[in-house]
Amino acid sequence: MLGRVLNTHQQWLCRRLADCGYVVTRQVAVPDTAPAIQSSVREALDRATLVIVTGGLGPTSDDLTRDLIAQLLGKRLRLDDAVLNHIKKRFAARNLPMPKNNEVQAQVPEGALVLANPNGTAPGLAMEVGSGVRGFVSGTPQTSRRLSQKPRAQTPDARWLIMLPGPPRELRPMFDGQVVPLLQREFPLDAPFVCRTLRTSGLAESLVQEKIGAPLGKWEAQGLEVGYCARVGQVDVRLSARGAEAEQVVREAAAVVQQPFGAQIYGYDDEEIETVVVRLLTERRETLALAESCTGGCIAHWVTNVPGASAVFLGGLVTYSNEAKQKFLGVRAETLAAHGAVSEAVAREMAEGARRETGADYALAVTGVAGPGGGTKDKPVGTVFVALADASGTTVERRLNSYERETFKQLTAQQALEKLRRRLISP
Amino acid sequence: MLGRVLNTHQQWLCRRLADCGYVVTRQVAVPDTAPAIQSSVREALDRATLVIVTGGLGPTSDDLTRDLIAQLLGKRLRLDDAVLNHIKKRFAARNLPMPKNNEVQAQVPEGALVLANPNGTAPGLAMEVGSGVRGFVSGTPQTSRRLSQKPRAQTPDARWLIMLPGPPRELRPMFDGQVVPLLQREFPLDAPFVCRTLRTSGLAESLVQEKIGAPLGKWEAQGLEVGYCARVGQVDVRLSARGAEAEQVVREAAAVVQQPFGAQIYGYDDEEIETVVVRLLTERRETLALAESCTGGCIAHWVTNVPGASAVFLGGLVTYSNEAKQKFLGVRAETLAAHGAVSEAVAREMAEGARRETGADYALAVTGVAGPGGGTKDKPVGTVFVALADASGTTVERRLNSYERETFKQLTAQQALEKLRRRLISP
Repeated sequence: MLGRVLNTHQQWLCRRLADCGYVVTRQVAVPDTAPAIQSSVREALDRATLVIVTGGLGPTSDDLTRDLIAQLLGKRLRLDDAVLNHIKKRFAARNLPMPKNNEVQAQVPEGALVLANPNGTAPGLAMEVGSGVRGFVSGTPQTSRRLSQKPRAQTPDARWLIMLPGPPRELRPMFDGQVVPLLQREFPLDAPFVCRTLRTSGLAESLVQEKIGAPLGKWEAQGLEVGYCARVGQVDVRLSARGAEAEQVVREAAAVVQQPFGAQIYGYDDEEIETVVVRLLTERRETLALAESCTGGCIAHWVTNVPGASAVFLGGLVTYSNEAKQKFLGVRAETLAAHGAVSEAVAREMAEGARRETGADYALAVTGVAGPGGGTKDKPVGTVFVALADASGTTVERRLNSYERETFKQLTAQQALEKLRRRLISP
Repeated sequence: MLGRVLNTHQQWLCRRLADCGYVVTRQVAVPDTAPAIQSSVREALDRATLVIVTGGLGPTSDDLTRDLIAQLLGKRLRLDDAVLNHIKKRFAARNLPMPKNNEVQAQVPEGALVLANPNGTAPGLAMEVGSGVRGFVSGTPQTSRRLSQKPRAQTPDARWLIMLPGPPRELRPMFDGQVVPLLQREFPLDAPFVCRTLRTSGLAESLVQEKIGAPLGKWEAQGLEVGYCARVGQVDVRLSARGAEAEQVVREAAAVVQQPFGAQIYGYDDEEIETVVVRLLTERRETLALAESCTGGCIAHWVTNVPGASAVFLGGLVTYSNEAKQKFLGVRAETLAAHGAVSEAVAREMAEGARRETGADYALAVTGVAGPGGGTKDKPVGTVFVALADASGTTVERRLNSYERETFKQLTAQQALEKLRRRLISP
């Protein structure tokens, strides 16, 4: 609540739950104080069949969640020897003694399932909260109908409370490996659920809806749900449906989206543009080099986030200075003098130089004005040239990406990789 | 709620509000449905003096917020000609007709202040919600005491509801330029508020608290609040206080943290390691080059996110392949054959090559096993060598960063820049 840490759990957990067919009805963040934590958990248990709490299981004095929830549910904490041994072993493996503080992480509320944490010290905890807290749970959970028509739980108003450790590298494998199987057992879906996201590049959100909104109406009448998510340079269209016909409804609706926007759809579901490009290059056994000026390594960073990128990515030259452009890419001093570093001619020489020097099949180059300084009347902040060189020649596009520095870099990286993708799929 | 978009508003707004001395008591996300939006806004107005709503002001059919809040507050919407003209002009500037859909963005609830949006179509809207909705507001807001002792509003239970557009590049300047002045006028602080964050690198959270927790107790008795925020490789210590003595309390507490951890404190408040490094290089009029293998351009991307980096950053070589290491950095084939690409010797030759080829004062080089593949018994996934070359020689550190690929890259980038920072501040 102080803005020191970016919360990535909401997106990650919501996507995982949505893809399993569960509907998330609310996400809440509160400060590390007893009243805030207890009242928000109490309200959530009143509202939903499943409550997932993240964080606050650490060893420091502001990690209060375990204690406060046990207190709220009237459960005693016991020291779990297996958990304590696990924590001691983790410290021993690093030749460190276990600080006394960490012992609190081995405290487990009575009746809780322990979710092992191979990536950290605090275990996850899962508790069925049912008839035992009847006096406490005040209402009928509003979402039980959506989470499951047939809860397997012993009591009709039973629900689950799951506490997960805060660090993403601990939470994520624990969720996938231990929480999802628990949910599938306790909250089996009552009907098939299908969802598909089509990711478009280079289109405005209002245009996307204007083209496909009306045609999709027919399937919405059959239970299709349509969602639009816009980011800079990208619009996602998410199609989902439940029931026996879900597969067919989503398939037919996807065809309606593909009809006007086929070429602009760069990927499906979780696919990022860099994942698609690495996959296409891998399939074609072709290689890539990069020459980046204004994006400053952003494209190389994205590409190398993809496991297996080393098979297709030969190297990147982040040539911020004119000297580096000349030395590593062979850009000519006369070209720089005649056209300036931000120009079609320099972008072309950068791409051709990167391809020549690395021997890659394709080379992308970008040069532009990221800002905030450096703009001119002819080439204002946001001006960028994107070049692609391959065996058939070199093409250059000029764009105006008038955004602040980081957005500028990301949008330019997206456009450059999209340019390569279109080349790779063209006949 | 479907996990398609990462919510960065919570962190950004919470930090801005916290730094202005306001306490955020809850953050809630709900799906784009009328009952969810209306009930969450109603609950928030019951709970707090200030409610900020983000998103849902776009032109598509799932952008319901403006309508639903007007309805909830019993306000009629009117078409605002100035806003409509602004929207039409934005489209005209791009030689596009305004889609009919966008007209809805010019609808303004009666009595609302319009917050101009120079970076998009939807304006922000600010409404005082007071006696006019007395029948609706059910309780005394619990946080009015903290937000302000002396609200300037006309009625004692008056509060403000502010709607902001979802895109960060629209929301952020609108908040800084128009919302902060509104808050300072309507909710003046009753006492000075001071906060300072000390950012440490390379320390475990439990160790940090073990060393400074007890010594800080004396100042906590004087109203100091202490918060710990841990990320991979980093722990932030946030110190804050209110009242006439706040400045002194925070200054003395900061000295208590600096005493054991001076060298490990890389920055203060919002400073990132790359900002600090660019600042130190700029002050010293020195230059940097990078040679990245396993980080794949991440360090260059970070450094070039800092405005003004071009004055100190000469270039980066993302040498993923052995051929690129030889060609661009002059790493010797014999060294690669004898020690392997992930080795102290190759890291050393990469750093020295980057420095020699670019003429930079400092060159950082990293080579390691990012995974998930490529690990061996001697060099498991996560092994990395970080080298720093300068006029006085070259030093290399070996680390084991056993995390998944993206975390590995980020932690390694942090460690490499921290190595440079310590060199820059050493006598």
